[in-house]
Amino acid sequence: MPQTNPSGTLELNGARLLQQLRELGEIGADPVAGGRTRVALTDDEKAGRDQVVAWMRELDLDVQIDRIGNIFGTLASSNPTARPLMMGSHIDTVVNAGALDGCYGVLGGLAVARAFRDAGIVPSRPITVAAFTNEEGARFHPDMMGSLVHAGGLPLDEALDAIGTDGARLGDELVRIGYAGEMVPGTLVPHEYLELHIEQGPILEAEGLEIGVVENLQGISWQQVTVHGNANHAGTTPTHLRHDAGYVAAAAVAELRRIAVDAGTTLATVGTFRVEPGVVNVIPRKAVFTVDMRDPDEQRLAAGEARFAAYLATIAGQEGVRISTKRLARFSPVVFDAGLTDVIETCTKRRGFSYRRMTSGAGHDAQMMARIAPAAMIFVPSRGGISHNPREHTDDDQLVRGAQVLLDVVAQRLGATT
Amino acid sequence: MPQTNPSGTLELNGARLLQQLRELGEIGADPVAGGRTRVALTDDEKAGRDQVVAWMRELDLDVQIDRIGNIFGTLASSNPTARPLMMGSHIDTVVNAGALDGCYGVLGGLAVARAFRDAGIVPSRPITVAAFTNEEGARFHPDMMGSLVHAGGLPLDEALDAIGTDGARLGDELVRIGYAGEMVPGTLVPHEYLELHIEQGPILEAEGLEIGVVENLQGISWQQVTVHGNANHAGTTPTHLRHDAGYVAAAAVAELRRIAVDAGTTLATVGTFRVEPGVVNVIPRKAVFTVDMRDPDEQRLAAGEARFAAYLATIAGQEGVRISTKRLARFSPVVFDAGLTDVIETCTKRRGFSYRRMTSGAGHDAQMMARIAPAAMIFVPSRGGISHNPREHTDDDQLVRGAQVLLDVVAQRLGATT
Repeated sequence: MPQTNPSGTLELNGARLLQQLRELGEIGADPVAGGRTRVALTDDEKAGRDQVVAWMRELDLDVQIDRIGNIFGTLASSNPTARPLMMGSHIDTVVNAGALDGCYGVLGGLAVARAFRDAGIVPSRPITVAAFTNEEGARFHPDMMGSLVHAGGLPLDEALDAIGTDGARLGDELVRIGYAGEMVPGTLVPHEYLELHIEQGPILEAEGLEIGVVENLQGISWQQVTVHGNANHAGTTPTHLRHDAGYVAAAAVAELRRIAVDAGTTLATVGTFRVEPGVVNVIPRKAVFTVDMRDPDEQRLAAGEARFAAYLATIAGQEGVRISTKRLARFSPVVFDAGLTDVIETCTKRRGFSYRRMTSGAGHDAQMMARIAPAAMIFVPSRGGISHNPREHTDDDQLVRGAQVLLDVVAQRLGATT
Repeated sequence: MPQTNPSGTLELNGARLLQQLRELGEIGADPVAGGRTRVALTDDEKAGRDQVVAWMRELDLDVQIDRIGNIFGTLASSNPTARPLMMGSHIDTVVNAGALDGCYGVLGGLAVARAFRDAGIVPSRPITVAAFTNEEGARFHPDMMGSLVHAGGLPLDEALDAIGTDGARLGDELVRIGYAGEMVPGTLVPHEYLELHIEQGPILEAEGLEIGVVENLQGISWQQVTVHGNANHAGTTPTHLRHDAGYVAAAAVAELRRIAVDAGTTLATVGTFRVEPGVVNVIPRKAVFTVDMRDPDEQRLAAGEARFAAYLATIAGQEGVRISTKRLARFSPVVFDAGLTDVIETCTKRRGFSYRRMTSGAGHDAQMMARIAPAAMIFVPSRGGISHNPREHTDDDQLVRGAQVLLDVVAQRLGATT
């Protein structure tokens, strides 16, 4: 194994990390609309996978693919039977995505493996870098699928039978792009799991901080609400005789804001909202909207859901409408491993980086891995909090700081020196 | 002129009126979706016009078409230079309409002319039945166009240049269907104008009344409101950092309800509402909705508009969004002629019909005609308040009662006897 830094200390090659982020970001690039599109199991995502596997092989990692298409690259250890220390994330994207969401965690993991290899240090347990299948859920539901299957939260066959927005079956697409591996999902149970990620939110930037020590991840509750009222003439129907589905839906949106403000930690978002028939002078007979409610505390999240359900029942009675709800998704909050977050904080402090402990607002593969191993996450700032957008951006020096903390944490866990 | 009822007293032929309503209702009928569709200046509406003109000619009415396509059928008078007593409405429809909206007023007018003709009574001034072009505005804007041009409220050339939702020019369509007449709009200024119409609202039915004496017509204010916020991640953006266009729009809808309830007489309806980008976990960057606000009192209508504008300004500042508004339509309230409404009330009482004085919630050609002549309206109940819908319905006996009142009023104004 050739050593480029045979000093015996681990050094992060930040330039190589940034270069790989740029190179991977070119795959699936859309020069017209901006960003890049590597939706799970498309040809462009296959090209991204091939590139990541090639980079793993450059580092002499042992590459294994499991039956749901998760990619694992493992750096050999002096103790080959020990459970690996795993780092990972995903390289699939939404449409016209930024270059960092997910990729930063995978390539940050490769940067850590590279530091060990370049320093000629054989780690005390295997170091595995994982790229999980279909984290975004842009084509196949559910999202975070690869890590969910890996953690035993979704049967493999059910995942393989998922039908995409284009009608394709996930299992067939895995075979088509050559990533239907043979390893049984869940084979590689890590000793610990770390995920480096951009914040995808505005908090670190707003507070001028360099590192987020992620100690928990919000629970997520998604539902679709349908209000059934009566269409009637806007000019001739007295207010007290109306059964206005649109008004009821709007009042529910306003109530959601009150729920969020009252709870303090709860976030509530109505991202879709439509009314029928959608005519200026016709009272809407139907309104359909979605609710995205999040809270890091399960009890508060459940309380927010209950308060909203009670509000819907009350206003349905008052306004003479019928309201039905459909659960779209529900994940309980995740508390990351306290020991790991303490180590992240200690390493961050030692580098003199400014930081805060914080909650992850978005879902990540780490929340699935936390089911089977101690897990934690490291955040770096996202400019303007923007993600899932070509304008997603984090400054290079911030990206390098985050990877440095990741390397420091791994070194600390494996008894090496940085 | 052959007389079928040469008794010297005016008798309403209710059966013939109901038959004509059914026959006209067959033109443009949609056996699949129900109702009939005779959108202005389409082939089906031309067929409806041809039928009405044929019926006018059966009654020996003098048919005149003006340059905006309004149809006038005039029964000769003993005093041919006197201004006519005019009755009218429209025969164009929305998509999948009922058979009564508009048609009832035109065919009710024909029933009055028929009563005079059948009784062999030559009226003391000409009786004119009008069918105005494009009252519904389903294809060409603005609605109530034919009566508006007739009353001098819209230049003819501007109306002829109106472009339809299908890209067609109104003037070209008039020529195509053969209804680009030669008479200058506004030539026939009536002595008085009466319009018989279904209520299109629930009030008469709810109160178990047979006749509505329409003493005024609400002012109408239409605007489109666009809220410009910031799209951001639903899970990572704290509530206080949000610029949620959808929330602001929903809060504005809730405020409109408060405005309506506080004012008592004001009606406020949000019939269209959409958000962008329309993704479950993305805070809407943009929301667009329409406001239909009505009040029979101009000061209260203006006060409602002002309160809403102030609310938008306040919430825009609070939420850090930009709000723009575009006026789509604005008609001041119309007070109908007190003398005419008194006569309608007297005639209704004499027949022993139950009634109430009321406000028209919808817009009608009568509001345009009120600009140039004393005008008033007679309403009959609409089952469930439903209109602009195949389920629009008024019982036959109620339809006959309304036409009887119309005939009685015309007879009173012309010194004849019923």
